[in-house]
Amino acid sequence: MKISSLQKARYEYQPKLPGMLRHGISDICVKEGSETQSVADQEKIKALFPNTYGKKEITFQKGKNTSVAKKHSVGVILSGGQAPGGHNVICGLYDALKETNPDNVLYGFKNGPSGLIEDDYVVFDDAYINAYRNTGGFDIIGSGRTKLETNEQFEIAAEVCKKHGITAIVIIGGDDSNTNAAVLAEYFAAHNTGVQVIGCPKTIDGDLKNEDIECSFGFDTATKTYSELIGNIERDANSAKKYWHFIKVMGRSASHVALECALETQPNICLISEEVAAKKQSLSEIANYIADSVEARGKKGMNFGVAIIPEGVVEFVPEFGKLIAEINELLAGAKAEAFNALPTWAAKYEFIKAGLTAESFAVFDILPQSIQQQLFLERDPHGNVQVSLIESEKLFSALVKDVLAKRGYKGKFNALHHFFGYEGRCAFPSNFDSDYCYSLGYNAFMLIQYGYTGYLSKVSNLSKPATEWVAGGMPITKMMNIERRHGEDKPVIRKALVELDGAPFKYFEAHREEWSKETCYTYPGAIQYYGPAEVCDLTTRTLALEKGEEI
Amino acid sequence: MKISSLQKARYEYQPKLPGMLRHGISDICVKEGSETQSVADQEKIKALFPNTYGKKEITFQKGKNTSVAKKHSVGVILSGGQAPGGHNVICGLYDALKETNPDNVLYGFKNGPSGLIEDDYVVFDDAYINAYRNTGGFDIIGSGRTKLETNEQFEIAAEVCKKHGITAIVIIGGDDSNTNAAVLAEYFAAHNTGVQVIGCPKTIDGDLKNEDIECSFGFDTATKTYSELIGNIERDANSAKKYWHFIKVMGRSASHVALECALETQPNICLISEEVAAKKQSLSEIANYIADSVEARGKKGMNFGVAIIPEGVVEFVPEFGKLIAEINELLAGAKAEAFNALPTWAAKYEFIKAGLTAESFAVFDILPQSIQQQLFLERDPHGNVQVSLIESEKLFSALVKDVLAKRGYKGKFNALHHFFGYEGRCAFPSNFDSDYCYSLGYNAFMLIQYGYTGYLSKVSNLSKPATEWVAGGMPITKMMNIERRHGEDKPVIRKALVELDGAPFKYFEAHREEWSKETCYTYPGAIQYYGPAEVCDLTTRTLALEKGEEI
Repeated sequence: MKISSLQKARYEYQPKLPGMLRHGISDICVKEGSETQSVADQEKIKALFPNTYGKKEITFQKGKNTSVAKKHSVGVILSGGQAPGGHNVICGLYDALKETNPDNVLYGFKNGPSGLIEDDYVVFDDAYINAYRNTGGFDIIGSGRTKLETNEQFEIAAEVCKKHGITAIVIIGGDDSNTNAAVLAEYFAAHNTGVQVIGCPKTIDGDLKNEDIECSFGFDTATKTYSELIGNIERDANSAKKYWHFIKVMGRSASHVALECALETQPNICLISEEVAAKKQSLSEIANYIADSVEARGKKGMNFGVAIIPEGVVEFVPEFGKLIAEINELLAGAKAEAFNALPTWAAKYEFIKAGLTAESFAVFDILPQSIQQQLFLERDPHGNVQVSLIESEKLFSALVKDVLAKRGYKGKFNALHHFFGYEGRCAFPSNFDSDYCYSLGYNAFMLIQYGYTGYLSKVSNLSKPATEWVAGGMPITKMMNIERRHGEDKPVIRKALVELDGAPFKYFEAHREEWSKETCYTYPGAIQYYGPAEVCDLTTRTLALEKGEEI
Repeated sequence: MKISSLQKARYEYQPKLPGMLRHGISDICVKEGSETQSVADQEKIKALFPNTYGKKEITFQKGKNTSVAKKHSVGVILSGGQAPGGHNVICGLYDALKETNPDNVLYGFKNGPSGLIEDDYVVFDDAYINAYRNTGGFDIIGSGRTKLETNEQFEIAAEVCKKHGITAIVIIGGDDSNTNAAVLAEYFAAHNTGVQVIGCPKTIDGDLKNEDIECSFGFDTATKTYSELIGNIERDANSAKKYWHFIKVMGRSASHVALECALETQPNICLISEEVAAKKQSLSEIANYIADSVEARGKKGMNFGVAIIPEGVVEFVPEFGKLIAEINELLAGAKAEAFNALPTWAAKYEFIKAGLTAESFAVFDILPQSIQQQLFLERDPHGNVQVSLIESEKLFSALVKDVLAKRGYKGKFNALHHFFGYEGRCAFPSNFDSDYCYSLGYNAFMLIQYGYTGYLSKVSNLSKPATEWVAGGMPITKMMNIERRHGEDKPVIRKALVELDGAPFKYFEAHREEWSKETCYTYPGAIQYYGPAEVCDLTTRTLALEKGEEI
């Protein structure tokens, strides 16, 4: 196997643990805090989690290790989309486990939660682990999106654990996966399986955070990678002076990624889905807002710009959501056949015009034809519009072009389009994510050793140097509330959206007028793993602002 | 102005000069070599360049500076597309000029060659220059694509130089710009203007190289940036195991960028335009070749892959070139109106079927409809097909899908698409490009000081540490031959295409079978500016192989 120079060099990197975990495992003790309550719907959540609800928050500190000495066999699962640092969670877990007792065993279940059900696994050893230290990707064991949520699955999982003598499972995943981890922990506790479950907060989207979890891992590296590219494109725009770049970034529901990239790169425009929803903005309003920037800049001779578009923004435009619902209704069942039978787009267009409300047709009618056709021609197996396929970066540039034409704008407006997502999910983890993930994994084993279950591995105080980080655990139920999902009330971890009165958005709001009219680009450049600390060790602007720090 | 941590840190970087230029300007002397001849068409080129043809190649070495002491006023121009390191050429030029005599003046003509004609300039000082050291982009003075090629333009240029007392112009550009630099040098010499012209080899495409110029600047940084992204996507593909990524990279004529990225990342597929042309490959042949990889991998359970597509590849497919020519003919003049008047795509399709030869229609007919429509509906102001707009990454994935369907392939094939170009043209220059560019600029001033004109600033032995680099100059006419351009015989610098018997392609050819069937990805990661030398100082695999080194 041929590996790159950087990969070789990164093998040598020793991730930084929180100060309190640096004294060796025999010198880590537990400090229990108060009992916890769920963030909402306490009675309902308590009833659903009788064995794991209300447990105490805990932190680790220096002191004699009082856990019961026994051999541990632990299983680990990667769940959902890739995020930089996943490998290091496993490395930290492995190192803590082997440091405690070389006979301890770590099983890696392959290709996501289904690996546990299918009993498809590897047993890690030093050589295997060493090939993945400080690397990106989830290829160490693969990931998958199977959800563990039925009792049937839990039963099989319990059998698999019993077969291997596994007494703890670590699930590395996002809000859904950690919700399922809590349900699994409750099942295992209720059925006296003796298997603990610990979660680790993963997602590049940044929407798994709350008063306990300061950020999910991978967000730092992914946003740094996107910001590198956006900054490079800004510099190109400012050099060539002839293109507006519309850049879509990943993030279906929350706009944390877009916002962090904006804070890093100071583009002319950045849409925030949560604001679009809160202000009930229409497509025209958004297009006009962007067109204002194009015009103002054009008047100063700056026929170029950069606009960041969060992937999911159109779903947050109320009138667009209504249009989609009407289209899904219009093409439900047999009606789709009638529609499909129409020979030309012109005939289809008339069918659509007759079938939509006047209000929704007006929205439909301002869309560029390519998007119109996409809405009707590319539907999922249930006949529904595939919103995720909509090229919103092209949609907005087309709408802006129309607005400018209607205004009689005489200046130049040439748009180019980009989408950044897959480029950042498997980058080599930044030093921050390398350290944070390794600490999460190491800390997860401490929670296991001390017998906790239904906990999320928690490392906090993250805007400070690692020596000041605080390690501990938080009952997952504390982060839950009841939400309506697919027609059922479900206990779930509340997804963290961008808060419009939070410091990161406030900072953006205070500067965006200037950014839209002037050229205030900043160029972060590529992620650095070496060099001065301020270049290679700082985490996100989002976290700094949330912590009340200056940026 | 807010600048990033990396930009601040990069200001402090001191670019490495070739060893022989490190002793201070008073200790640099000239060693003249043999007289030169153009690479072909010697008599014709000699006749066109009576004053600048046949000059000697020169190198600099340690020794007493024997140039005539005088005040120098120099103008510098950035020409054409951005390439990382352009700013450093200007910084090196400025430093050499000021080190020689603080009264020397450097003018920067704005927004490309037109700045010289329009007398639009800045005068550099320390504060201005220091804000751009080791940064990407051409925003220091902007760039442009105006060509300096008529006597009328040359006359104005001479006047502008005279007005400011400028006695030398440095043109930073690609093969066309340096061709024009040679013509300008000849004009200035023939008209006794006393103005010298020196060129510097720029282009991320890598197609300005020959036995004298080992590589153009920017190629290193741009390919490292694309390789970072391709590697990240490979790791994502290998983790998610469900997508084939079709990645188009910049490079309209030569495939050096695609090839270098392939050497860095070992993807499953990389098309090379020069090979497609040499083997007269058809679209079907290429699609079948990719489909073979999809099938072979699918059989082993690997329903994922990565294919690199050079931007210009379709233009190299003979049958496709013929199709484009026929379409242009079919829609020339009044016929376009008849075509445009047809109400539906179905009617247009029949018109096309009737108008193309059977051979070309067969090619047209295998294209996906979106590409078919693009060919006919999006034409340039002259009515011609806009080949550069063709989304070849989508074209090939669609063709592969069709081939697989025809073969009755039952496996999964889900494609995602990417295009990387603008992401890499303005990155912070790698240490290699920072050093190389600074050296080119510094060296350009040495050529000016010693009275040379019509020379390209030349720094060679680039695969070795900078201390072993060789600085000198080469008459631009040496690199020229006569080519037919727009119906005229023109003296031009021969564009360097990928040589199918060259070491970089041979290496690729020897490995690609294995890469296509197995998963041999390498993950280069982000460009590093700090850290171990093998991580932050190495240049391209292409150059290493060309120099006979192992990779």
